[in-house]
Amino acid sequence: MDFAPSPKMQELLPRLRAFVQTHVMPLERGMARGFWALQPELDHVRERAKQSGLWLPQVPAAHGGMGLSVLEHGMVSEVLGATPLGHYALGCQAPDAGNIELLLEHGSEPQREQFLRPLLQGRTRSAFGMTEPEHAGSNPVWLSTRAQLDGDSWVLHGHKWFTTAVDGAAFVIVMAVTDPEAAPHQRASMILVPTDTAGFEHVRNIPIMGEAGEGWMSHGEIRLDGARVPASNLLGPRGRGFALAQARLGPGRIHHCMRWLGICERAFAALVDRAATRELSPGHVLGEQQTVQTWIADARAEIDAARLLVLRAAWTIDREGLDAAREQISIIKFFTADVMLRVIDRALQAHGAAGMTDDVVLSHFYRHERGARIYDGPDEVHRAVVAKRILGARRRDGGSP
Amino acid sequence: MDFAPSPKMQELLPRLRAFVQTHVMPLERGMARGFWALQPELDHVRERAKQSGLWLPQVPAAHGGMGLSVLEHGMVSEVLGATPLGHYALGCQAPDAGNIELLLEHGSEPQREQFLRPLLQGRTRSAFGMTEPEHAGSNPVWLSTRAQLDGDSWVLHGHKWFTTAVDGAAFVIVMAVTDPEAAPHQRASMILVPTDTAGFEHVRNIPIMGEAGEGWMSHGEIRLDGARVPASNLLGPRGRGFALAQARLGPGRIHHCMRWLGICERAFAALVDRAATRELSPGHVLGEQQTVQTWIADARAEIDAARLLVLRAAWTIDREGLDAAREQISIIKFFTADVMLRVIDRALQAHGAAGMTDDVVLSHFYRHERGARIYDGPDEVHRAVVAKRILGARRRDGGSP
Amino acid sequence: MDFAPSPKMQELLPRLRAFVQTHVMPLERGMARGFWALQPELDHVRERAKQSGLWLPQVPAAHGGMGLSVLEHGMVSEVLGATPLGHYALGCQAPDAGNIELLLEHGSEPQREQFLRPLLQGRTRSAFGMTEPEHAGSNPVWLSTRAQLDGDSWVLHGHKWFTTAVDGAAFVIVMAVTDPEAAPHQRASMILVPTDTAGFEHVRNIPIMGEAGEGWMSHGEIRLDGARVPASNLLGPRGRGFALAQARLGPGRIHHCMRWLGICERAFAALVDRAATRELSPGHVLGEQQTVQTWIADARAEIDAARLLVLRAAWTIDREGLDAAREQISIIKFFTADVMLRVIDRALQAHGAAGMTDDVVLSHFYRHERGARIYDGPDEVHRAVVAKRILGARRRDGGSP
Amino acid sequence: MDFAPSPKMQELLPRLRAFVQTHVMPLERGMARGFWALQPELDHVRERAKQSGLWLPQVPAAHGGMGLSVLEHGMVSEVLGATPLGHYALGCQAPDAGNIELLLEHGSEPQREQFLRPLLQGRTRSAFGMTEPEHAGSNPVWLSTRAQLDGDSWVLHGHKWFTTAVDGAAFVIVMAVTDPEAAPHQRASMILVPTDTAGFEHVRNIPIMGEAGEGWMSHGEIRLDGARVPASNLLGPRGRGFALAQARLGPGRIHHCMRWLGICERAFAALVDRAATRELSPGHVLGEQQTVQTWIADARAEIDAARLLVLRAAWTIDREGLDAAREQISIIKFFTADVMLRVIDRALQAHGAAGMTDDVVLSHFYRHERGARIYDGPDEVHRAVVAKRILGARRRDGGSP
Repeated sequence: MDFAPSPKMQELLPRLRAFVQTHVMPLERGMARGFWALQPELDHVRERAKQSGLWLPQVPAAHGGMGLSVLEHGMVSEVLGATPLGHYALGCQAPDAGNIELLLEHGSEPQREQFLRPLLQGRTRSAFGMTEPEHAGSNPVWLSTRAQLDGDSWVLHGHKWFTTAVDGAAFVIVMAVTDPEAAPHQRASMILVPTDTAGFEHVRNIPIMGEAGEGWMSHGEIRLDGARVPASNLLGPRGRGFALAQARLGPGRIHHCMRWLGICERAFAALVDRAATRELSPGHVLGEQQTVQTWIADARAEIDAARLLVLRAAWTIDREGLDAAREQISIIKFFTADVMLRVIDRALQAHGAAGMTDDVVLSHFYRHERGARIYDGPDEVHRAVVAKRILGARRRDGGSP
Repeated sequence: MDFAPSPKMQELLPRLRAFVQTHVMPLERGMARGFWALQPELDHVRERAKQSGLWLPQVPAAHGGMGLSVLEHGMVSEVLGATPLGHYALGCQAPDAGNIELLLEHGSEPQREQFLRPLLQGRTRSAFGMTEPEHAGSNPVWLSTRAQLDGDSWVLHGHKWFTTAVDGAAFVIVMAVTDPEAAPHQRASMILVPTDTAGFEHVRNIPIMGEAGEGWMSHGEIRLDGARVPASNLLGPRGRGFALAQARLGPGRIHHCMRWLGICERAFAALVDRAATRELSPGHVLGEQQTVQTWIADARAEIDAARLLVLRAAWTIDREGLDAAREQISIIKFFTADVMLRVIDRALQAHGAAGMTDDVVLSHFYRHERGARIYDGPDEVHRAVVAKRILGARRRDGGSP
Repeated sequence: MDFAPSPKMQELLPRLRAFVQTHVMPLERGMARGFWALQPELDHVRERAKQSGLWLPQVPAAHGGMGLSVLEHGMVSEVLGATPLGHYALGCQAPDAGNIELLLEHGSEPQREQFLRPLLQGRTRSAFGMTEPEHAGSNPVWLSTRAQLDGDSWVLHGHKWFTTAVDGAAFVIVMAVTDPEAAPHQRASMILVPTDTAGFEHVRNIPIMGEAGEGWMSHGEIRLDGARVPASNLLGPRGRGFALAQARLGPGRIHHCMRWLGICERAFAALVDRAATRELSPGHVLGEQQTVQTWIADARAEIDAARLLVLRAAWTIDREGLDAAREQISIIKFFTADVMLRVIDRALQAHGAAGMTDDVVLSHFYRHERGARIYDGPDEVHRAVVAKRILGARRRDGGSP
Repeated sequence: MDFAPSPKMQELLPRLRAFVQTHVMPLERGMARGFWALQPELDHVRERAKQSGLWLPQVPAAHGGMGLSVLEHGMVSEVLGATPLGHYALGCQAPDAGNIELLLEHGSEPQREQFLRPLLQGRTRSAFGMTEPEHAGSNPVWLSTRAQLDGDSWVLHGHKWFTTAVDGAAFVIVMAVTDPEAAPHQRASMILVPTDTAGFEHVRNIPIMGEAGEGWMSHGEIRLDGARVPASNLLGPRGRGFALAQARLGPGRIHHCMRWLGICERAFAALVDRAATRELSPGHVLGEQQTVQTWIADARAEIDAARLLVLRAAWTIDREGLDAAREQISIIKFFTADVMLRVIDRALQAHGAAGMTDDVVLSHFYRHERGARIYDGPDEVHRAVVAKRILGARRRDGGSP
């Protein structure tokens, strides 16, 4: 057992940290101007990242990435997560990171050429269309969107929302029922749908927590009304949509957890700074209050705990594969989300009225990261998954001492 | 001991509930258009409220109000609080309600004529300027704003923020140090400052949780740079600013708590509706989940508990005055805020992704009511107040059995 | 709405409080010697209580009690609950109080003569045999104990545990299946079984949290092996066992809650005393710590909240009957138990090592009141009951605003 | 970074686990008979442990131990902690383990010969006398016990309690003020006091949570009334008592945390077993309840988190020494205690009434491990320690990003 990061990481992480602080964080204030206004500056930072060898950390070197293991990417991702713009700067932002993974593993050569290559270069963006407003996201096999083969085309009808970053995306990977008569988990397939397809409508960016957002920083609602794409746009085997989605969501969840650790540390630093500097009366700072000390100590303990759980899950994936880590992934999903929201809440409270304002990044985290307990499976589902696996194993193995 | 509302309330409350549901709630969707766009419709509802005898519930009948006791107003306020527009519709919205109280009790005849009368008629709005960005709000005696008597004028210099609803207000009641050499609690006074005074600057509406808002639905930052008002604009005795502010904050806090109970019930109803109707799979609703049942049961218990505490505090004020209820007021401040935020959080979680959107009122409450644990004294201060009073009483009375 | 106790209670409660402090609490230290050793002193106190008109508060005056309403008894019960011996001193201890109620409402004249009269006089004690080790208490219809009519006798076979105070009791009211073919809720009946019946075995007093106890202060395990009692020992109608048990448990639960409030106040007083007197360094007491202040403030708020909920439930029973209060009773059961255990825990923590010792009453409460979240229906069952009633009402009434 | 145990541990741990299950756990039921009755069987198991090379895991091989690192001992200690008798069986029980460490590091040759050697062989036991009833344990420099040099003897006067296992111990290491005029942290020294010294009185075993216990399973109160021991019984340098105590407490705390992990796993196994086997109705087990699933999932997450934090702290001690790990040790102290108590509480609740009985080990843990949040520094002190270190570091380093 060894808790020290590898020499490679000991070199990389401080360099990355400096990059983020120097080049990425200063752009945060521009977020209020909207994504489109900020994009040129972000593009500039991306160029600088590429030149510094800080591009696509999770992608194999053969495809132009840094070729990091899941564990290594976890450490990188925490550094990036400290700012809402960190992952975008290195080209590993959701939902593109997951889509890159899907195309790398399951894309045909022409699909890679048409859809993947520009994505890897950061010239396009993409989206993933799964969630539907009419059905509970916690029951993924319950889909209304349909795709029918008509000649050598798929014709799609359906309604999706929370299609992250579809505004301005080049294409959407759409989950659609292609085989309604098959067994429940074999009904759906993934289909690549360019956003300029006739019958594809980007209805709106959904107003979320007071902001509709735009571009990469938004979540869209879309309608497919007879959208027609070539039959060759099927991604992976027909009827394997759920299997692929599951394979995509596993690492997706761990990526979220890694990013959340960065948010935890950012919020923690804000809490400590405030405690150390805010005077309650001349010469007496907030950090002398025992309650604030309790917040600091609990936050430190909980963040460290979450980080170790997340890194252990990443290490398990690297050694034994995604399947062996499934229980761990569910655990870190609800545990880390919970820790993050509590750290943000304490940091906000420590800031008093200022914490409510958009003058500090905490209010951004407070609003937008509330979704962490919901997306990619609500807490309640992940807890049930963990318990059922444990109870199942217990039934197989018999009792305990 | 009797937990039944009086016959008067048993007649009034259902009538009020119907008014709110029929005339006020439908305007909520217009909030996205901003206060100024919504104002004509709100004015229309206010007219209707006046005609229905539902105007200024907390103001004595002699001044055109309904003359309710604090306990009665508590019950009314819960009904109004179910919508962010409820109190405005009846003219009892913060910060005007508190300012009306100040002017009724401490205003000179000319002050009442100039400032109070249009307020009571709903023709103007007002603001209250206490909090300063440079100093902790939990230490109210630490103020930088100064007012100096120059001839028969007060000349004010200072910087305030979280001056609620100053955007479009006719005047601000400003807390300013007038006697810097006096004892700490006797340094400040209240001064009526019309917003069209030269040297009064409304710097901005502060972006809070993603929204700067406007008009009554905003919190402003103001600067006073040599603003000059007549000496007669002093409200109450010189050097009594803190005493008056304290007297204003006491009922202000209980008014907040009453309003929060309305939010609790609104969020609870949303939780129950969602549980009863959202299908997780065909024929199976969310409310069959034991975790959701736990949320419902806990929320019901906690809301009922908070309501009884709030009504008891109101009853104590009616019978024994504000001073006798001080410990109770601190208790309901932190207890009710905590209950409210937990009920909102559970209701939001039950809504899944939809709960994050501005399509439901929960996300509005989630963001804007987070301040409940901060304004009018953070939780931490109120808890300390309660404990110190209890420990003080114990020291006076000697030990317990 | 009126939160003031009636003049009658304003006279009674201080008198009762003095009685408990003067005559009952001093006996607590004797609990370590065991119930049998303590009984003579307890009998002495009971005599004194009778002479002071403080006997059987919940029993109608016609039967020699004080004839208090449920609400009034709630207030009395809180005073008594401050010591583990309080209810015993006034003859209203569990499980006898519940059995008295059963016999008063459903006992035949001969049953009253034989079983009830000595109970009311405090000359005997009784027990109630429902829970079985083999079956989940949360599923009361699942019983193994059988009673068969053989001639004019009932012959009982079965196994019970947590038969409170059976050690030394004169009789047990046994729940037994008499009609195994009937509908599930109509299978069981209540049968009065004297403990000197052949075939009745008191197996042991169950060691609970380190103490088997004895006499009234114990929970027994019993076996019925062909115990034969007259057919006339059937209590209430045949097949109505569950209905009677339910009717018995309702007030039983509220009596527990009332008693718990007394424990809350006792623990709270211990917390405040410790905070006010324990020096952490010369001249500096524990109560200066903000964390301890937070415990005090939260405990005060939560106890007050629990008390108001309990008294409101009692008031509802008085006015509208037990059925109308069912949801409220479930709410106070889990809410008050939770508050009590948290208050005890904080008080214990404030006492440091001393809190772990049997030198203070807190460790007694910590151990024995942990059962509050389990007996008479675990928290989880009561929460589900509340939620299902709310969801059921919502389905009947349609949606909310 | 590597989360896999070393090959050495992969061999040792299953062997140890089998030893504990086969030879130690069966003795648990005998605990009700008391330590003295159980001792012969325990001695027998100890012999077997020695023969199996499982003796004194934390002691260097040169002194007859297994020579494990702190990290390795952590893993061993978790296995042992699953039963209250585990550490005793391998000779590494508190308080002897800490005393062994003190004597190994600071004992003179004669002290080692007289006191240490029989301890290592398991022929004697020892105690550590620090806590005094009159003074807060959280302020260790506030001691009343005095030792004065009189000729070549120390003469001791004082009063101690929570002197763990002093009943039957051969000697006590007593913390006493030897230099009352020195700086606060240099006033006390450690003195070896044989329990057969005249003037040494073992007053009683303190009744704790319903049990006074006896022998190794007890906590004593002692008085020193002119107890006279040779001057050579001073352990370590004069005036260095606090420094030594601190050095003793650091590893002592981590040993507790490791042991608690064993308790966590034992309670978790009990929770899972109960969930998997307890029928609520025929064919339906407790584990189908979502609430119970939540308990299982949360417990699994929290135990894993605590274990990783504890092992990381051990690893830090092995690599960088105790000082570098001080913040981590405080963190695991409050974090692990909290996790343990919550896991025990959930497991107990899942057992219903049975969980309250001494028929299951849970009620033992519930009572006796409540002290975990108190001894070796209450939670509140450790949280403050962590926060002050973080705030101190922040002041030295300047602000954060």
